[in-house]
Amino acid sequence: MRVLVPDLPDFRELRVEGVEFAFYSRDHAPEGEAEGLVLWLATAELRGELLRRSGLGWVLTLTAGIEHVAGALAEGVALYNAHRLHDRAVAVHTAAGMLAAERGQHRFRDAQHEGRWAPTTDLGTLDGRQVVIWGYGHIGRILEEMLTPFGARVTGIRSRTPQAERDAALSGADWVVLLLPSTPETRGLVNADLLARLKPGAWISNQGRGNLIVTADLLAALDSGHLGGAVLDVTDPEPLPEDHPLWSRPNVVITPHIASTTADLFARGAEYTQAFLTELVGGREPEGRVEPGRAY
Amino acid sequence: MRVLVPDLPDFRELRVEGVEFAFYSRDHAPEGEAEGLVLWLATAELRGELLRRSGLGWVLTLTAGIEHVAGALAEGVALYNAHRLHDRAVAVHTAAGMLAAERGQHRFRDAQHEGRWAPTTDLGTLDGRQVVIWGYGHIGRILEEMLTPFGARVTGIRSRTPQAERDAALSGADWVVLLLPSTPETRGLVNADLLARLKPGAWISNQGRGNLIVTADLLAALDSGHLGGAVLDVTDPEPLPEDHPLWSRPNVVITPHIASTTADLFARGAEYTQAFLTELVGGREPEGRVEPGRAY
Repeated sequence: MRVLVPDLPDFRELRVEGVEFAFYSRDHAPEGEAEGLVLWLATAELRGELLRRSGLGWVLTLTAGIEHVAGALAEGVALYNAHRLHDRAVAVHTAAGMLAAERGQHRFRDAQHEGRWAPTTDLGTLDGRQVVIWGYGHIGRILEEMLTPFGARVTGIRSRTPQAERDAALSGADWVVLLLPSTPETRGLVNADLLARLKPGAWISNQGRGNLIVTADLLAALDSGHLGGAVLDVTDPEPLPEDHPLWSRPNVVITPHIASTTADLFARGAEYTQAFLTELVGGREPEGRVEPGRAY
Repeated sequence: MRVLVPDLPDFRELRVEGVEFAFYSRDHAPEGEAEGLVLWLATAELRGELLRRSGLGWVLTLTAGIEHVAGALAEGVALYNAHRLHDRAVAVHTAAGMLAAERGQHRFRDAQHEGRWAPTTDLGTLDGRQVVIWGYGHIGRILEEMLTPFGARVTGIRSRTPQAERDAALSGADWVVLLLPSTPETRGLVNADLLARLKPGAWISNQGRGNLIVTADLLAALDSGHLGGAVLDVTDPEPLPEDHPLWSRPNVVITPHIASTTADLFARGAEYTQAFLTELVGGREPEGRVEPGRAY
């Protein structure tokens, strides 16, 4: 079986009996048919070309999201995602952002820039905090396990949660953590109307996709003082241009879409690929199969 | 029983049968004998005067440390500290600082100041990290419970840990967390010699007392690149003057001695005092008694 994989040092080390590896770079791929494609880090143009490659039977995208693949895939091609590769780091990143915000670390970093020793008493912990995890899947469950020892009270809501239940949870939340995928239903879900129904002083953490939030409405809710603050790993637009007003809000903490990134991510991606291929060649169904027609 | 307590709104609400409360401000106290003193937030001068107050039978300091009291106390006066009031917040603050550092939050905050969307891959989690908690008491145990779900491997060392064991733990540590009190034995413990024996790239978190670390040696270890970075809630000198070199080191994260601070600290302090006095008046021994002669 010929399989196209990204040309990274860790992938050059892969050895799986019955698999012939072919390596593509960010913007260039070798010729010829391939039965499998392990998709990672390709440009949009190369990605389009790879997904139309003749003979393709399956695609493993080493991302958690699949919106960049799902629509472009020919019928009958099996799609797998790699949420497990990213889940734990995203949960850690989310917990870190919440704890750091409660402890005022962004404000103290600002003071550090000015050489100011500026103690303050308006600091919190997560003890007794109502945390709503919106998009309660693999990551949400790991996150809940991490937050519980800190005394947080976690409520998970999903697309199938009844709206009355969802609204009740949101109106009592100290923290709303967005872990939703980007779909036609979730885009712009956090708008002025929803923000107004949150408890004054509530914080939002967006670790899902930037367009879950209507950015102008978020800015207005921050400026009115209704919202306590926001911890954003994803933004709309993304990347955030240099002069965007979100950058300079003191109670907005921005990281550049790196929630799932760790120094060993490529090594972990290669390991994941090795395990995946071993299952597949052995005639077993690997983890991560995306049902046809699903957009996430 | 007449008891001197700080003049804070939450303390004005205290009612304990058999106790007459007298209120002192930061720098002024009412006249007259007092059997008990609840010490908090007084200036050094007023503190000295209060501790010599005639008739004093016991002192409750609402701090975890006692170095500001222990030496000034007349013989026979019982001393109590309030570590439980501070332990949990300090553990949360310590965990938050470690997680935020692993996730590069200080670097991203710096980039945010410049409007720079600057993804990077050299980010970590605590998965598999060797964490040495030096000064493994109440706070250390809570911290260990918080770090374990993140995959950290915690080793606690104390003053009675044999030196060979201590050195072995330190040389393998990815994180060294200082939770020690300041005593003649602990001052300057983290010096050039000790820093050189740490693993290259290790991080230090000091949540104990500033003078545990020789600041010049810390700066040298940072500048040489041997040390990965430092998360400091306490410094030497403290407060850190505006032009101190520690402020501008990119991999030093400073908070201004607020690890135990939360917005509800005064309310919690009053609750703690209420419970303490109820025990005492009821003829039971309250928690927190410090053995005579101990300096911490």
